[in-house]
Amino acid sequence: MDSGLSDVKFLKNGNGNGALVTMIEGGEGLFRVVAQDPESKARCGVLNLPHGPVETPVFMPVGTHGTVKAMIHEELEEIGFSLILGNTYHLYLRPGIQVLQHFKGLHSFTGWRGNILTDSGGFQVFSLTPFRKITKEGVRFRSHIDGSSHFLTPELVVEVQRVFGSDVLMPLDVCTPFGITYKEAWEAVELTTEWAARSKKAWEGTMEKSRGFLFGIVQGNFFPDLREKSAEEILQLDLPGVAIGGLSVGEPFETFLELLSHTVRFLPREKPRYLMGIGTPEFILEAVDQGIDMFDCVFPTRIARNGTAFTRTGRIALKREAFIYSEEPLEPSCACKVCQRYSRGYLRHLFKVGEIAGPVLLTYHNLYYLNQLVKEIRSAIRAGRYPTFKKEFLSRWASPLYNNQLF
Amino acid sequence: MDSGLSDVKFLKNGNGNGALVTMIEGGEGLFRVVAQDPESKARCGVLNLPHGPVETPVFMPVGTHGTVKAMIHEELEEIGFSLILGNTYHLYLRPGIQVLQHFKGLHSFTGWRGNILTDSGGFQVFSLTPFRKITKEGVRFRSHIDGSSHFLTPELVVEVQRVFGSDVLMPLDVCTPFGITYKEAWEAVELTTEWAARSKKAWEGTMEKSRGFLFGIVQGNFFPDLREKSAEEILQLDLPGVAIGGLSVGEPFETFLELLSHTVRFLPREKPRYLMGIGTPEFILEAVDQGIDMFDCVFPTRIARNGTAFTRTGRIALKREAFIYSEEPLEPSCACKVCQRYSRGYLRHLFKVGEIAGPVLLTYHNLYYLNQLVKEIRSAIRAGRYPTFKKEFLSRWASPLYNNQLF
Repeated sequence: MDSGLSDVKFLKNGNGNGALVTMIEGGEGLFRVVAQDPESKARCGVLNLPHGPVETPVFMPVGTHGTVKAMIHEELEEIGFSLILGNTYHLYLRPGIQVLQHFKGLHSFTGWRGNILTDSGGFQVFSLTPFRKITKEGVRFRSHIDGSSHFLTPELVVEVQRVFGSDVLMPLDVCTPFGITYKEAWEAVELTTEWAARSKKAWEGTMEKSRGFLFGIVQGNFFPDLREKSAEEILQLDLPGVAIGGLSVGEPFETFLELLSHTVRFLPREKPRYLMGIGTPEFILEAVDQGIDMFDCVFPTRIARNGTAFTRTGRIALKREAFIYSEEPLEPSCACKVCQRYSRGYLRHLFKVGEIAGPVLLTYHNLYYLNQLVKEIRSAIRAGRYPTFKKEFLSRWASPLYNNQLF
Repeated sequence: MDSGLSDVKFLKNGNGNGALVTMIEGGEGLFRVVAQDPESKARCGVLNLPHGPVETPVFMPVGTHGTVKAMIHEELEEIGFSLILGNTYHLYLRPGIQVLQHFKGLHSFTGWRGNILTDSGGFQVFSLTPFRKITKEGVRFRSHIDGSSHFLTPELVVEVQRVFGSDVLMPLDVCTPFGITYKEAWEAVELTTEWAARSKKAWEGTMEKSRGFLFGIVQGNFFPDLREKSAEEILQLDLPGVAIGGLSVGEPFETFLELLSHTVRFLPREKPRYLMGIGTPEFILEAVDQGIDMFDCVFPTRIARNGTAFTRTGRIALKREAFIYSEEPLEPSCACKVCQRYSRGYLRHLFKVGEIAGPVLLTYHNLYYLNQLVKEIRSAIRAGRYPTFKKEFLSRWASPLYNNQLF
C-alpha cells in the first residue's frame, strides 16, 4: 500500500527548489497538513486512520457492496489504494446487519485490510429508492431490491457504521437536487444540522465499538447563504472532518465551481475536507485548487466497464472501429500493468466479445490513472508548482467541462 | 510459470522410495515420457513446445476468445499455467483473420507469453452453428453471431492456425454425437482420416510460418472397431501428437471409460495423448489412469461463474443459504490466494449482489485447484503410487459419476 510516509519525512526537510511551500510539522490527531501551495488553496496532508495512514489529496474508489466493481482487493493494493468507500445503503440491505455483526465488521467480512469510509446511505435513499418519506425523526423508504420497508434514523445510521467498523463514518443528511426552492433548501439544511447533532451524540456514545471518525456534511443546495449557514452549524459540532455534499448533482460546471469555492471559505484549515461524488481529472484538479483533500466517484470505474479509458489527453471509447488494429497501449506514458502488456486492439476485442477481462483491465487502468494523478498532484503541491501543473494538465486535456457528463 | 524442469532432473536420479517407476531419459522431439507408473498406464512427461516446456499430465484452461473467462493472463501465470487453449471457430469469427494477421498472431495480439493450443473449430461448427453442411471438400456453416456464411476446409483450418501462431494445431475432423448409426460413424471416420491427411500436407507446406505441432484426432464414435480403424489410420500419418475426440459428449460414464480404455490400446507410448473436453477431478483421474497426458474443459471455469467451487470432497454451490454465515475458506487445505483471504460467506455475498469479483475469485480457485490436482498426480506417478493416490482421492470425493453432469 502507498502510505508514502517517507515522502512526508523528506519534505519536512525542505522541498529543495526554493518555492514558498509551507511545510507544517506534527499534529497528533486525525489529520495534519504537511504542505500548502503558496498561490492556491491546494494542500497536502496525512490522514491517520485506524487501518493505516493515507496521504491527501486522495481519490477513493467506490466499493458499493464491499468490493470495488470488477476489481479484487489484491489489485487495489497493487495500485496503492489504502482507503476505499462502502455504501451503507447497499450493505445495510445486503448482506445486512446480522451478517456483518456475525463477521465482526466489514474488514473481516470482505478481507480488505486498508481503511473504509462508508457514506450515510442518504444519497442512495434519495436517488435509488422507489419510495421515501422524510420526517424529523428520520427517513422511511422502500428497498430498490425487494420493496421491503425500512426506517433510517441518524442514530441507526451511526450504529450501522459502527457494526461495519468503518474508519470514517458519515452522518445521515438530507440530499437535495439542483433547482429546488430556497424554502426547501433551508428546511433541508435545518434537518441536516439537527441530524448531524444527533449523529454526533450517537457516535460519542459508541466509542467502545470501533475507532472510526465521524465527519460532518455541509449542505445548502445552490444558495450561497445556505451553504454558509450549513457550514457554520456543522462546524460548530467540531467533528473530526468535514464533507461537502450536494454538489456535482447535475448543475452547470461554473455553478459547481462557484459554490465549491464559496463553501470552502467557511472551512477551517486544520480539518480534512471531503468533496463527495467527484472523480474526473478536471473536477479533481479544480477541487484540489480549492483545498479539497478527499474525493470519491463511481464514474471512473463505471465508464471502464463500458469500455472508456482515461488517457493523458482525455478519454477514449474503445468500442470505436478506429481501434481495431491499434497496437498502442491505452496510454503510452502509463506504467500500469495493463498498459505494459495489452494493446487497444486486444482490449477492444475483449469488449466486443463480452469477456469479463475487458471491464477488469479497463477498471484497473482507470484507477491506476487516477491514483497516479493524485500522486503527481501531491508532488506538484510539495514542489510549490501546483497552479502550473494544473494548467499544463488541462491544456492538453480534451474535456466536456461546460457540458457536465458526470451524471 | 510452472515449467517444473528441476523436478524432472531430480527424478532421473531415482524416485527415492523404491517403487518400480520407469524413468525415461532424453529425447529431442516434442515429447518425452519421464516416469511410468508400474501398475497403471499413468505416466509423466514433458512437452517441448515453442513457448516453453510443459509438464504432463496437464490441464489446459480454455481461452475461447484469446482470454480465459474471468481471468487475466497475470493470474494464470501466478497459478502456474503455461499452456492454454484458444477456440479457432470463435477467433476466426472475432477478431477475425485480418486482425490476427495484422498483429502477427495470437501471442502478440493477446499478450499471452505461454503456449497456445487451438482446436480445429470442428466441434463448435457441429455444436453451436444454426446451419452446417458437410461435403468431402469441407464444411459450410452459418455464424452463430451474425448468420454470415463460411466454408472451412482442412487446409484453411491449418492456415488459420498458422496465422494464430498456435503452438499446437488441431486438424478439422467430423464430430459425431452419441447414438448415431454405425454407417454414419463409419463415414465420419473415413472423412476424418481424409481431412487429417490433407491437414498434414497443409501443415508441412507451411512450416516457415510458425513452429506449431499438428496433432491427429482419433474418432469412431462409440463403436470399438471404428475407434481401432480411426486410430490406425490417424497414426499412420505419424503426426507429432494424438488426440481422442468424440468422448464425453453425453454418454454414460461407464461407456466413456470403456471406449477410452479401448482407444488408448492403439496409441503409441512415445506420442503425447490429448483427451478433448475433460475437466473434472473424477474424469481427469480416470483419464490419467489410462495414460492420457493432456486435457481441457470449460466446465471448471463455467461452474465457477455460476458460483460452484471445487473442494477436497466435492463441489459446493455457494449461492445456497447454508453459506451465509460461513467464515471458512472455499477449501481449508487450499493454498490459493482466494482461500487465504476470502470466506465462503463473503464470496456468496458477491454472487448474490452480482459483483464481477465473485466469478473472478471462484474461477481463480477452481483453476488453482485443478492445477494443484495435476501437480499431485505427477508427484504420485513419480513416486510410484498413482493407483493409491487415485483411490484415496475418489474415496473422499462425492461424485455424480454415473450420472454424467458434464454437459
